[in-house]
Amino acid sequence: MARIADRLSELGLSLPAPMTAPPGVELPFRPVRVSGGHAYVSGHIAIDGAEVLFRGKVGSDVPLERAHEAARATGLSMLASLEQELGDLDRVTRWVKALGLVNCAPGFNQTPAVMNGFTNLILDLWGPDAGGHARSSIGVAELPFDAPVEVEAVVEVG
Amino acid sequence: MARIADRLSELGLSLPAPMTAPPGVELPFRPVRVSGGHAYVSGHIAIDGAEVLFRGKVGSDVPLERAHEAARATGLSMLASLEQELGDLDRVTRWVKALGLVNCAPGFNQTPAVMNGFTNLILDLWGPDAGGHARSSIGVAELPFDAPVEVEAVVEVG
Amino acid sequence: MARIADRLSELGLSLPAPMTAPPGVELPFRPVRVSGGHAYVSGHIAIDGAEVLFRGKVGSDVPLERAHEAARATGLSMLASLEQELGDLDRVTRWVKALGLVNCAPGFNQTPAVMNGFTNLILDLWGPDAGGHARSSIGVAELPFDAPVEVEAVVEVG
Repeated sequence: MARIADRLSELGLSLPAPMTAPPGVELPFRPVRVSGGHAYVSGHIAIDGAEVLFRGKVGSDVPLERAHEAARATGLSMLASLEQELGDLDRVTRWVKALGLVNCAPGFNQTPAVMNGFTNLILDLWGPDAGGHARSSIGVAELPFDAPVEVEAVVEVG
Repeated sequence: MARIADRLSELGLSLPAPMTAPPGVELPFRPVRVSGGHAYVSGHIAIDGAEVLFRGKVGSDVPLERAHEAARATGLSMLASLEQELGDLDRVTRWVKALGLVNCAPGFNQTPAVMNGFTNLILDLWGPDAGGHARSSIGVAELPFDAPVEVEAVVEVG
Repeated sequence: MARIADRLSELGLSLPAPMTAPPGVELPFRPVRVSGGHAYVSGHIAIDGAEVLFRGKVGSDVPLERAHEAARATGLSMLASLEQELGDLDRVTRWVKALGLVNCAPGFNQTPAVMNGFTNLILDLWGPDAGGHARSSIGVAELPFDAPVEVEAVVEVG
């Protein structure tokens, strides 16, 4: 069993520490909330415990390739929260929806190319059937901690 | 039968070709994902196959009236994806929620007036009971392909 | 009974009049839409009937402390809509998810600190178990009526 954990190892990936609030910051919400067969996942940035891994605006401070990497790392941070909440990532039986938020410098609109870093991670781990999901990729004005990418999601849990 | 298709004809409307990725762009997500009695619809722009129909920022490049038209066309693109996924638009038994994203020039905040182009299309086709939906209309910094409007949605499917 | 109404009184809070469209504005959507055991709540701003209570960009026109107050007032406006739709706030048995949108001046990214005004109101009223929710807090370019904060939500209804 532990299919997803095994697949992470095969891909040479490991999960960061689950998100905790950086010093002086209050984050009084739940990283994951389960309701009616779905887990609703809070907006996540790429973070290792309380250490923010990427900062800056995409298209100026952060080039596309690095933003794509940040989106993939954001996925790993989200999986750390899901594992903490659910006990086992195999309980995520199907991905449903993701909302990708890209901290865009003026004029940068290749937001789908950035979010592919997240989507391809999920497809690599769950495969095209269980991992396939609806998605939006939008350019926002600001993100918490000046992160370049934030993603929230809805998944089915078994 | 084919109530929604008939209603489209009565209104003189036709659906564009379902969204496909423009050349050089990878869109590895699902336009529609069905889960637990709902269809989650990815963020859609007004598109005919791979041809982006409207571009520019609302309030500068794109005046309000044209943005309203873009929001209505965005709805038709969403219906093309729903028809492709579900086989028949009559399977959309009830609208639940839409998130409208408007690519705003600085200082333009009449985002609800823009999104009415989408909402009124849905009400024209499904009527006030089945077509009524919760909604947000926000102004974002950038949208994919420089589209003026993007909409994602959740609907009930029978 | 009337637990939440009692708790509002204990805290010295009262609900504003439910949102109505300001003159000259059409808002043809539902403030709340119930589907499959959940209520989907439209994006709300802090409003008393048709009177917009706060305006301006956070970080320039509106300082953090006042934006936090606006987020709390936004929660009260949302509760007015839920009470109107459901008849009784005790029918909201559990909070699931909130999406917080902050109208940010360039460079302001303390969006979680703003949204804590909303989240702490819900926790004050429903307690940590029923009131806990997943959340995102993002900085957007523009909001309707130049509001500093908008929040949409999903809750369980009994």
